[in-house]
Amino acid sequence: MTRILYELVAADPAIRFSPYCWRSRMALAHKGLAAETRPWRFVEGDALAFSGQGRVPVLVDGDEVIHDSWSIALYLEERYPDRPSLFGGEGGIAPTKFINAWADTVTLPAISGLIVADVWAGLDDECKAYFRESREKRYGMTLEEFCARREERVLDFRKLLQPVRAIVKDQPFIGGEAPTYADYIVFGGFMWARATSSFELLAADDLLWSWRERMLDLHDGCAREARCAAA
Amino acid sequence: MTRILYELVAADPAIRFSPYCWRSRMALAHKGLAAETRPWRFVEGDALAFSGQGRVPVLVDGDEVIHDSWSIALYLEERYPDRPSLFGGEGGIAPTKFINAWADTVTLPAISGLIVADVWAGLDDECKAYFRESREKRYGMTLEEFCARREERVLDFRKLLQPVRAIVKDQPFIGGEAPTYADYIVFGGFMWARATSSFELLAADDLLWSWRERMLDLHDGCAREARCAAA
Repeated sequence: MTRILYELVAADPAIRFSPYCWRSRMALAHKGLAAETRPWRFVEGDALAFSGQGRVPVLVDGDEVIHDSWSIALYLEERYPDRPSLFGGEGGIAPTKFINAWADTVTLPAISGLIVADVWAGLDDECKAYFRESREKRYGMTLEEFCARREERVLDFRKLLQPVRAIVKDQPFIGGEAPTYADYIVFGGFMWARATSSFELLAADDLLWSWRERMLDLHDGCAREARCAAA
Repeated sequence: MTRILYELVAADPAIRFSPYCWRSRMALAHKGLAAETRPWRFVEGDALAFSGQGRVPVLVDGDEVIHDSWSIALYLEERYPDRPSLFGGEGGIAPTKFINAWADTVTLPAISGLIVADVWAGLDDECKAYFRESREKRYGMTLEEFCARREERVLDFRKLLQPVRAIVKDQPFIGGEAPTYADYIVFGGFMWARATSSFELLAADDLLWSWRERMLDLHDGCAREARCAAA
């Protein structure tokens, strides 16, 4: 059976940087499901027309086509119930959806204000034009203005992570002794930064540094080994 | 069997205002477990000595003594497995712990900056002195300064609730079709404000207003009927 994950790529197609695609990639690895990954660029909306929409991640799993990282996680959990659970059972889905909403509305916007100028720098010329125009319209300022004073503002970002810190001070993963999809949700944001920017999101003595190291080690170190712009 | 929940009270002992005690009260109601509630004031630490610490909520359930709202929820879930689940099963516990940490580190501190001057006003004289001294030391300013400009700052508070809004736009409760402990966690903060202050936390057209109405209706309207300072 063919299994394909469409992922956002930079000018270097080996650099996969979408935080949402990383959630899906880690979810597949958690389930032990191999997938061919297919590069997709911001300007290639038509290439996703088969999915009925224009954004990644898109998972093709045999005859099934699923888009949106949350829907992909739910699909994998339901379709592959005998593989390790992403949610620790049915009851985990609703509160994990809250964590998904928290990451989408709190951490990802904050990370964008630290790295989008670097994200832009890693794109090919065609994507650079698209990205600058669409993001500058969204932010109401230039990418460089949006990322200004990031050495100061990263301190605010770190405060936003307090709920995660409160959890991983007592246990290795948000999911407990082992990671769950909740961990992959938060981790996606860190991979977005790692893949595109040399700017460090965490202080070295942050509890979350150790958590991130554990995440990088998971599933044969698939995240640690992924190509980064800074490397 | 005797079941007693020790709850924080104002000068009027019918006013129960601790957000943590509300989590436990709603958890008991969710499980359909009757409990005698016993009033406790800030200055009565000795009265909790039997629990090995000095804060409420404390639940006495027969021979068991449990303190801390999160521990009480876990205890109730394990001790009464045949009653409606607070977590939707084992897998719900870890991600709900994140929601607990989020509420404790994000929403409750924000609500305190809107209402603690009102909380103080509702206390008896002895508790007023304790509360003002301990909180002003913690905040580094007077209670009135801490609550200044709340009409402006409530807008920031409302933004913090975006993750909850993202959930209840699609479903009636954070837990899904029915409430779970995740709902009680967040709701506790609203009961803290409702019991002590006439200051409105939400805009009338906020999705969360409807969610809060649904919460007030639960379990025979036990939260709606509770005594409030503003009433």
